[in-house]
Amino acid sequence: MTEDLRHFSIDCQLDYQLVGDTDFLFQVHVSPLGDQTLHEEWLEVTPDTARWRIAVDPVTQQRRLRLRAGSGPLSLRYRAQVSVAPRLFPPTAMVDQANVTDLPDEVLAYLLPTRYCESDLLAHAAWKLFGALPPGEPRVRAIVDWVHEQVEFLPGWSVSTTTARDVFVRRAGVCRDFTHLSIAFCRGLNIPARLVAGYAPFYDEEAPDFHAVLEAYVGGRWMLFDATRMSPLSDLVRIADGPDAGDVAFCTIFGGARMLRMSPTIEPVNGTLPPTSGFVRSL
Amino acid sequence: MTEDLRHFSIDCQLDYQLVGDTDFLFQVHVSPLGDQTLHEEWLEVTPDTARWRIAVDPVTQQRRLRLRAGSGPLSLRYRAQVSVAPRLFPPTAMVDQANVTDLPDEVLAYLLPTRYCESDLLAHAAWKLFGALPPGEPRVRAIVDWVHEQVEFLPGWSVSTTTARDVFVRRAGVCRDFTHLSIAFCRGLNIPARLVAGYAPFYDEEAPDFHAVLEAYVGGRWMLFDATRMSPLSDLVRIADGPDAGDVAFCTIFGGARMLRMSPTIEPVNGTLPPTSGFVRSL
Amino acid sequence: MTEDLRHFSIDCQLDYQLVGDTDFLFQVHVSPLGDQTLHEEWLEVTPDTARWRIAVDPVTQQRRLRLRAGSGPLSLRYRAQVSVAPRLFPPTAMVDQANVTDLPDEVLAYLLPTRYCESDLLAHAAWKLFGALPPGEPRVRAIVDWVHEQVEFLPGWSVSTTTARDVFVRRAGVCRDFTHLSIAFCRGLNIPARLVAGYAPFYDEEAPDFHAVLEAYVGGRWMLFDATRMSPLSDLVRIADGPDAGDVAFCTIFGGARMLRMSPTIEPVNGTLPPTSGFVRSL
Amino acid sequence: MTEDLRHFSIDCQLDYQLVGDTDFLFQVHVSPLGDQTLHEEWLEVTPDTARWRIAVDPVTQQRRLRLRAGSGPLSLRYRAQVSVAPRLFPPTAMVDQANVTDLPDEVLAYLLPTRYCESDLLAHAAWKLFGALPPGEPRVRAIVDWVHEQVEFLPGWSVSTTTARDVFVRRAGVCRDFTHLSIAFCRGLNIPARLVAGYAPFYDEEAPDFHAVLEAYVGGRWMLFDATRMSPLSDLVRIADGPDAGDVAFCTIFGGARMLRMSPTIEPVNGTLPPTSGFVRSL
Repeated sequence: MTEDLRHFSIDCQLDYQLVGDTDFLFQVHVSPLGDQTLHEEWLEVTPDTARWRIAVDPVTQQRRLRLRAGSGPLSLRYRAQVSVAPRLFPPTAMVDQANVTDLPDEVLAYLLPTRYCESDLLAHAAWKLFGALPPGEPRVRAIVDWVHEQVEFLPGWSVSTTTARDVFVRRAGVCRDFTHLSIAFCRGLNIPARLVAGYAPFYDEEAPDFHAVLEAYVGGRWMLFDATRMSPLSDLVRIADGPDAGDVAFCTIFGGARMLRMSPTIEPVNGTLPPTSGFVRSL
Repeated sequence: MTEDLRHFSIDCQLDYQLVGDTDFLFQVHVSPLGDQTLHEEWLEVTPDTARWRIAVDPVTQQRRLRLRAGSGPLSLRYRAQVSVAPRLFPPTAMVDQANVTDLPDEVLAYLLPTRYCESDLLAHAAWKLFGALPPGEPRVRAIVDWVHEQVEFLPGWSVSTTTARDVFVRRAGVCRDFTHLSIAFCRGLNIPARLVAGYAPFYDEEAPDFHAVLEAYVGGRWMLFDATRMSPLSDLVRIADGPDAGDVAFCTIFGGARMLRMSPTIEPVNGTLPPTSGFVRSL
Repeated sequence: MTEDLRHFSIDCQLDYQLVGDTDFLFQVHVSPLGDQTLHEEWLEVTPDTARWRIAVDPVTQQRRLRLRAGSGPLSLRYRAQVSVAPRLFPPTAMVDQANVTDLPDEVLAYLLPTRYCESDLLAHAAWKLFGALPPGEPRVRAIVDWVHEQVEFLPGWSVSTTTARDVFVRRAGVCRDFTHLSIAFCRGLNIPARLVAGYAPFYDEEAPDFHAVLEAYVGGRWMLFDATRMSPLSDLVRIADGPDAGDVAFCTIFGGARMLRMSPTIEPVNGTLPPTSGFVRSL
Repeated sequence: MTEDLRHFSIDCQLDYQLVGDTDFLFQVHVSPLGDQTLHEEWLEVTPDTARWRIAVDPVTQQRRLRLRAGSGPLSLRYRAQVSVAPRLFPPTAMVDQANVTDLPDEVLAYLLPTRYCESDLLAHAAWKLFGALPPGEPRVRAIVDWVHEQVEFLPGWSVSTTTARDVFVRRAGVCRDFTHLSIAFCRGLNIPARLVAGYAPFYDEEAPDFHAVLEAYVGGRWMLFDATRMSPLSDLVRIADGPDAGDVAFCTIFGGARMLRMSPTIEPVNGTLPPTSGFVRSL
């Protein structure tokens, strides 16, 4: 029903200062599939001399902006109007965990350790902490609850190379750290898990930031979880998912650039957005 | 020309002792694409009660054996007759390195750090060691030469969690370690790189083992390199490629199993194998 | 009272095979101070050509055997007759924790992170886990109880380079690992802590091994704790203490040697040992 | 001869903002022994309510300021007039390296790995890089030359937990990082090595900072080396030495404090300082 849809207006501004020719990979475009409907979007890149194109993943329809620019300032502004269908989760009792051999082929990759989620190192700890709990959704929920309680939200403690192991040791981090640790625990328990990057309104935080949450494969489907509890999952506007934050970073830089500004704002929109049949897209 | 083909006979035996129900992912099947032709192959799994199927990657045709078995012994025997077309490399001068933005979309993933190849941590060292060399194939060649000289081939120094960083620090390892370090350096220099797992005859080693070599994307194509020099690249029979050894391990175990025997033998075959049009496959 | 003394007979055999000239540092001699009385001891080194002397720490009287030998076999046999006075601990309520500034100068070093006890990395976790508990002895006891419950005794999981961080992550190890993690937590909470190496009868284990336990400075004195619970603390015969296992290893090798045998047996002795006034020492 | 003495005026200002009761360990006092003569010194601590005393090491005469203060600002100003005798090094040919067993007992500790110098992890690399060079002083010189060339001086790359391994991997750091890596290599090659903290005029840098250099035990004595080449060793005014930077940090904080200012200025003084027989010390 249309009245259950959540509507959001996104305005994401990213400014950089470049030293020499630099290649970028931006992942800021909203996903147009699944429970999301994209009504309108605009992209503005300054200066004009920047060379770019949008790469669309043939399977997931996730979009990446591939860009090359020379010395000097670079600015990117992405705006979008999106609506998100209600996210209703099945009753816990139905959400069981499959044997590895019964998992679909395409989710197997999400069982492996990755750069930021060393599930091989954390598997023994995961079994000791969560192995006695009922498998499936309850176990994942216990993981994110544990992470929420044991890890402190402390901006500035983690850097771009911080991994799940580091977060487990230091017990502090930001949303991507919470999610990396949750992912590593899940995989250590043979539950496929990945990171979802997106826009989310942080009602209690002053500065806007990209969000990162967990998606675990239980009961034959991917389910969203958020160990930070910074924003309701109903308000998450998905950009992309991947094995960990390295795959879905909002910006990956090949070369020398300094970020001057990052402002991924998202606002809930009152009233109903225009029907999708009539939307106009600038791209 | 047929007379330039190399023919190989593979006989791979893997034995395990299982403690409870255990899931496996085996990657021992030879790749049937590219410069390889598969003439015949056999797979035997003991006991009969083991439940298994072969998952084929829709794009690469790489095959994975997904298997579940209960307590007790488990044995796997894979045999194959394969021929490999001559691997001729273009002249060095033609093999340049593209800007990141000009790389095909599908190779971008091979620029990112992975569990065993922390190219983010090693990028600065890579630039200091190899940044002054001509880009493209010469730079990759310098990397594998450096790894060959600076890292000692020492079985027993590395474990399943050893990464490129560890190898760079300890300067010792086996083939997968040599390859992980080479991959990390390549990616740190913005050269897409991946690991190729395969069978290779080690003419100077007593015990057979799986091999792992580097594939780097230079000059618009994937090129093979081997920092170990244990076996000519013309003799490598490819099983699969992936971002690092985690993705293409010959065996990934979910549960409790002890390996009793690993014997991936490969023998060059004199004479010509039967023409591919007439081959028989047991699977 | 004499009848409360515990008497032990120690027989420690260490055998090596040397490749070239090799220097050793052995710490196998029992400490003759504090609550221990050394009645008799013998040391035998084979071959005769090995050059050695015993270095005695001027403050602690701890002894180290410094030895140099050439290619071939090297054997060391150390035997001792020791008695240990009863180890009675003050009531918990009296054992408070001093401010750092009120600690004696000589214990300050035991607050710093060391090679195997990265208390700087684990301090935040320590505060989150134990910061709400009453300071002093109760907090240390909570630490060793936690380590006992959360870390599994699994020989073979740790190697000579395993640190407290690794043990915290992997939740498995042997006695030195249990102690390193306990030390790191203590220091993270500003409690001076060190490792005590010694002989201890492991009544439930088949093979004899050196033991390592925690000593924490609370209530103005050093107190022993054992997170492994493998042997009663009343039965520990102290060799030496130091910031971590690196300082008090039973053997540190500079060169190429392979250990063939390690057998540090200790047996409780029935009856009373000869009075200390009449003891004879072979060294 | 007096005319060869170097004279320095030191003025070190440290300001902090404290959150709650906090304990400090400051090591800013100049060493009064060896080739240094202390003419005059002043220490000022604000506020008056801060409780402090100076702990003097009975062997080395190194001094540590132990201090406890409550919430609010804390300031420390240390000034000193010092002269340094000429540092003449013996000819290289005489500076040999002893067998470990022939080293004095008191330098043995400097062969062991420490928190920031994991010589156990780096030993194999050290042998591969420097093992073929003549032992003793030439090998140490080769180490610091290598570190000078291969590691980039890049403030901001390292943090308080950065170790020699990290520096070896990332090839960037500041003076303590250069020294930690040099120490780890030395110890890996069985050369006792430690860190010397001090004041040094950085003629090419804008902001004053504490300095950290290497001291290696070769040819029967401790010799200074500086892999950074930021300041001549003749101009180093020694504060203290220790196994690594953790032991001789200018400030170790137990509690919550934020550093507002660090200004350890040192100026060469023209003319001769007053003779030591007539000096006045404020402490």
